[in-house]
Amino acid sequence: MDTNAVLDLMWVVICGILVFFMQAGFTLVEAGFTRSKNTGNIIMKNLMDFCIGTIGFWAIGYTIMYGDSIGSFIGNPTLFFDSVKDMHSLFFQTVFAATAATIVSGAIAERTKFSTYLIFSLMMTVFIYPISGHWVWQGDGWLTKLGFIDFAGSTVVHSVGGWASLVAAIMVGPRIGKYTNGLSNPIPGHNLMIGSLGVFILWLGWFGFNAGSQLAISGDSANAVAGIIITTNIAAAAGALTAMFVTWGLYGKPDISMTLNGVLAGLVGVTAGCAAVSPVGAAFIGLICGTVVVFAIEFIDKKLKVDDPVGAVSVHGVCGALGTLLVGVFATDGGLLYGGGFAQLGVQAIGVFAIAAWAIVTSFIVLFILKKTMGLRVTKEEEIDGLDIHEHGTNVYN
Amino acid sequence: MDTNAVLDLMWVVICGILVFFMQAGFTLVEAGFTRSKNTGNIIMKNLMDFCIGTIGFWAIGYTIMYGDSIGSFIGNPTLFFDSVKDMHSLFFQTVFAATAATIVSGAIAERTKFSTYLIFSLMMTVFIYPISGHWVWQGDGWLTKLGFIDFAGSTVVHSVGGWASLVAAIMVGPRIGKYTNGLSNPIPGHNLMIGSLGVFILWLGWFGFNAGSQLAISGDSANAVAGIIITTNIAAAAGALTAMFVTWGLYGKPDISMTLNGVLAGLVGVTAGCAAVSPVGAAFIGLICGTVVVFAIEFIDKKLKVDDPVGAVSVHGVCGALGTLLVGVFATDGGLLYGGGFAQLGVQAIGVFAIAAWAIVTSFIVLFILKKTMGLRVTKEEEIDGLDIHEHGTNVYN
Amino acid sequence: MDTNAVLDLMWVVICGILVFFMQAGFTLVEAGFTRSKNTGNIIMKNLMDFCIGTIGFWAIGYTIMYGDSIGSFIGNPTLFFDSVKDMHSLFFQTVFAATAATIVSGAIAERTKFSTYLIFSLMMTVFIYPISGHWVWQGDGWLTKLGFIDFAGSTVVHSVGGWASLVAAIMVGPRIGKYTNGLSNPIPGHNLMIGSLGVFILWLGWFGFNAGSQLAISGDSANAVAGIIITTNIAAAAGALTAMFVTWGLYGKPDISMTLNGVLAGLVGVTAGCAAVSPVGAAFIGLICGTVVVFAIEFIDKKLKVDDPVGAVSVHGVCGALGTLLVGVFATDGGLLYGGGFAQLGVQAIGVFAIAAWAIVTSFIVLFILKKTMGLRVTKEEEIDGLDIHEHGTNVYN
Repeated sequence: MDTNAVLDLMWVVICGILVFFMQAGFTLVEAGFTRSKNTGNIIMKNLMDFCIGTIGFWAIGYTIMYGDSIGSFIGNPTLFFDSVKDMHSLFFQTVFAATAATIVSGAIAERTKFSTYLIFSLMMTVFIYPISGHWVWQGDGWLTKLGFIDFAGSTVVHSVGGWASLVAAIMVGPRIGKYTNGLSNPIPGHNLMIGSLGVFILWLGWFGFNAGSQLAISGDSANAVAGIIITTNIAAAAGALTAMFVTWGLYGKPDISMTLNGVLAGLVGVTAGCAAVSPVGAAFIGLICGTVVVFAIEFIDKKLKVDDPVGAVSVHGVCGALGTLLVGVFATDGGLLYGGGFAQLGVQAIGVFAIAAWAIVTSFIVLFILKKTMGLRVTKEEEIDGLDIHEHGTNVYN
Repeated sequence: MDTNAVLDLMWVVICGILVFFMQAGFTLVEAGFTRSKNTGNIIMKNLMDFCIGTIGFWAIGYTIMYGDSIGSFIGNPTLFFDSVKDMHSLFFQTVFAATAATIVSGAIAERTKFSTYLIFSLMMTVFIYPISGHWVWQGDGWLTKLGFIDFAGSTVVHSVGGWASLVAAIMVGPRIGKYTNGLSNPIPGHNLMIGSLGVFILWLGWFGFNAGSQLAISGDSANAVAGIIITTNIAAAAGALTAMFVTWGLYGKPDISMTLNGVLAGLVGVTAGCAAVSPVGAAFIGLICGTVVVFAIEFIDKKLKVDDPVGAVSVHGVCGALGTLLVGVFATDGGLLYGGGFAQLGVQAIGVFAIAAWAIVTSFIVLFILKKTMGLRVTKEEEIDGLDIHEHGTNVYN
Repeated sequence: MDTNAVLDLMWVVICGILVFFMQAGFTLVEAGFTRSKNTGNIIMKNLMDFCIGTIGFWAIGYTIMYGDSIGSFIGNPTLFFDSVKDMHSLFFQTVFAATAATIVSGAIAERTKFSTYLIFSLMMTVFIYPISGHWVWQGDGWLTKLGFIDFAGSTVVHSVGGWASLVAAIMVGPRIGKYTNGLSNPIPGHNLMIGSLGVFILWLGWFGFNAGSQLAISGDSANAVAGIIITTNIAAAAGALTAMFVTWGLYGKPDISMTLNGVLAGLVGVTAGCAAVSPVGAAFIGLICGTVVVFAIEFIDKKLKVDDPVGAVSVHGVCGALGTLLVGVFATDGGLLYGGGFAQLGVQAIGVFAIAAWAIVTSFIVLFILKKTMGLRVTKEEEIDGLDIHEHGTNVYN
């Protein structure tokens, strides 16, 4: 292999390792933002969606996504992908698939059956995610051909996970005690310290997520990679600062949970455009997403009355869609503010809505079948006592 | 230095940094699986075996392992190794040596004297580990010459740590209250959340452990590295899934601790053959180790009545040996299932047993001398009150 | 871009990502060493100094530090730095700037107003740190021209943070209950487990901090990088071992907190000379700093009666200065013990004192203005109840 190819492979592998670590970040965030009686269940769900994702995406998901295109809609699948020269690609795409799946576990935490979750997670990584991913990231996908830009997956990964989360959270229903007399009762998480560590780990992993999506570092890619690192970092910082100041204004105090979600909002938002916008554009994307995430969480919680314990729908769904649209505004080549007119913005909107529709419809079908067969939800007694003791026969803290 | 050499050095350094981080993983796993009154002692043991390993392996261990071979048995030692062109190698091998040492701390947690542990840890990194390591990883070692395959150390690192753990756990004896009336009483760990984080960190570090053992990434090594990343990841996932389903069948519920140990079992198992087996082979190794680890932990705990609080003997000893043997079965070049006959399997068995014998005999001698001089165990009062307050004068949690 | 440039950029980016993660390490150390009622406030301060640092250093700090020199004293600033070919440099320097700022949060933990801290943190990253940094790391800075050696920032980063911490801790005053009847009362941290994890993460990140400061890995830089990894690791291990044995002698037991600070003391100490000293020299630097840090913490706490909850002044200020001076002793080229006479040591002293004076004077001015305007300290009631509930309206643990 020549030197440039070695450099590119090495970069993809290193970034994939960073993205793998995001699984720990998601686990910590979800566990920290929920109650201690369900921590073991959250650990198991996050661990298992990665394990299922690893096996499922290798077994068939990868080729559904990247196999030769059948009608620009789906790849031609082969079982148990094994090609010496593409193992780095399989790894990098596997950790992405697992990210999309793991987002859902947070939105339906503290009341969903473990066995049902495992099946849903499998369907996410071998069916729902790879097909819409094919549309955008396989060169012959129909959204690629339209010119849709989602560099690292604000829509392909995050909003797919986010919209599936929305459907799942609605279908599973709110936790006992969450809504009484039409009011939303806060259910505080048990450990914001580990939640914060999770956010730092996600931020760390996101450098791999976004800059690894260049899929190369040799030649001209090197400067592109460095630029992506900067736009990613600036958007995250801007998202956190904005969410903090917004809550300071709204509630009178800078809110910790919302600020942490502001980091993630900025990161999700800039993921689509990290290679297409300037540092200033990234700052605005972070600022917008850091603002919107606060109101989206409030709206979904208090108005829609959808119980999403970690804000996954707002962070990954809303900010994923928004960040993808904002590429049409801030892209230095073709964005609305850079003289590109509304063309790119229109294409972005088509992609955002098409993939949202796909994720919503397919996850509804899968969850509907699961509801009628296995059931989605633990019993009332199990929920009140905690899932750890009933589903796993143990306590996490002793 | 030419570009390929730079690439190789860079890869080894990055992987060494990842392996370093496994020390944090071991600390978290061991602390999480034991009681809070001993957490500080576990932190200190894990921190100190790395510090002692760093100094000891540099001072003499590295050249005992990699110096010019004396009779294919031991390297010719020089003190305080300092060679500008080999510093990356010293670093990578140091973090490996510390891994072998740190495994033992888990098996003898909650009742072993701190000062004694420090001496034992020193002996592991300057004597026990480097000599058997020389047999396999120095080109003139006698097991190398036989054709023994242990690519990244299922046997050289993990089973050496595992068998030393077995000897140490027997000699130190069980914790007070562990066995009463011939029955094994579970002593739950105090925090599976940090234990799980530890497992994620170990998984992260293992990518460096296995793929760094290629010691190169330039040219043809690039594809080898990517292949190792995939086999490592698949074995871990398969190990976790299998351990989960096995416990689900056995106990009626998917067990968290066992599933976490299933991850480690898969990782330990594939370490020997990560560069020699296909993804399918890796899945089978994970599946086998994920099954065996559950029964091994039960057997050692309930039948042998050896008190190993974290399952170190089963994970590192049993799965390390098993994974090494399975190279003789699944190696695509020479494995039993690939038409290679029993030759490789026989060589693997020789290596596994020779190194087990070495680790058992030498750790017995060292611990026997320590028992007769310093003593292995804290007093009954210290054990009941907790080692933190007696050995370190503090509580970890306030 | 040619291959060597790609390699160098890639190395700087990877190291920058590691240094970024040190923010999580600082957060965990500071939170673990303080009380649970202030954990959320510590999370927010550490998160926000990085966010403010990201925006502020990009907005103006970077060019104040690295812009064309005005009189060897300050760079010529430009707003919102954006140069395609220097984005990796902006990233690497940003994470350094944030490190200097974040050190202070530990020293003034548990009683400082959040809003005031944000302003001070901004001043650190856009004014105090970049200017003294310019003196040493911009080729035309006056200390560079003198021949001052501070390879990765024992003085430029750590002692600047440490001396600012000293000034801030004095001006904010001790926590309520810390000193009664002229005696220092220990106020134990709430979770040494997460504190230890923080130390492991800092150690991990420090490999990037020191070896990334080579700013290259191609050609001859490769061996330099590997050498830095080794000196860094040996100094950390020696620092920890020494601090442990010193406290074992002093208190009769090996102290956990001091041993953890010994790791950091060794790391801070070797940062200036990591590329200039041999492994043996690094071991001595670790040994000296690991000894001094114990006495410095005791002296500042009990004699000076300055309340520094995490020992930031001793670790970063004292060991930063000491490590910089020791370059004049242990540098293999020009050090006192290597036949170089006192010349280098003299230059080191000039740099150490000049930058200490700068940090002390400027942080005093900034804090004095803040004291007279916003106020430095929370109310007595807020401090007693905890900053989390008053400043952020939440509890971290539920």
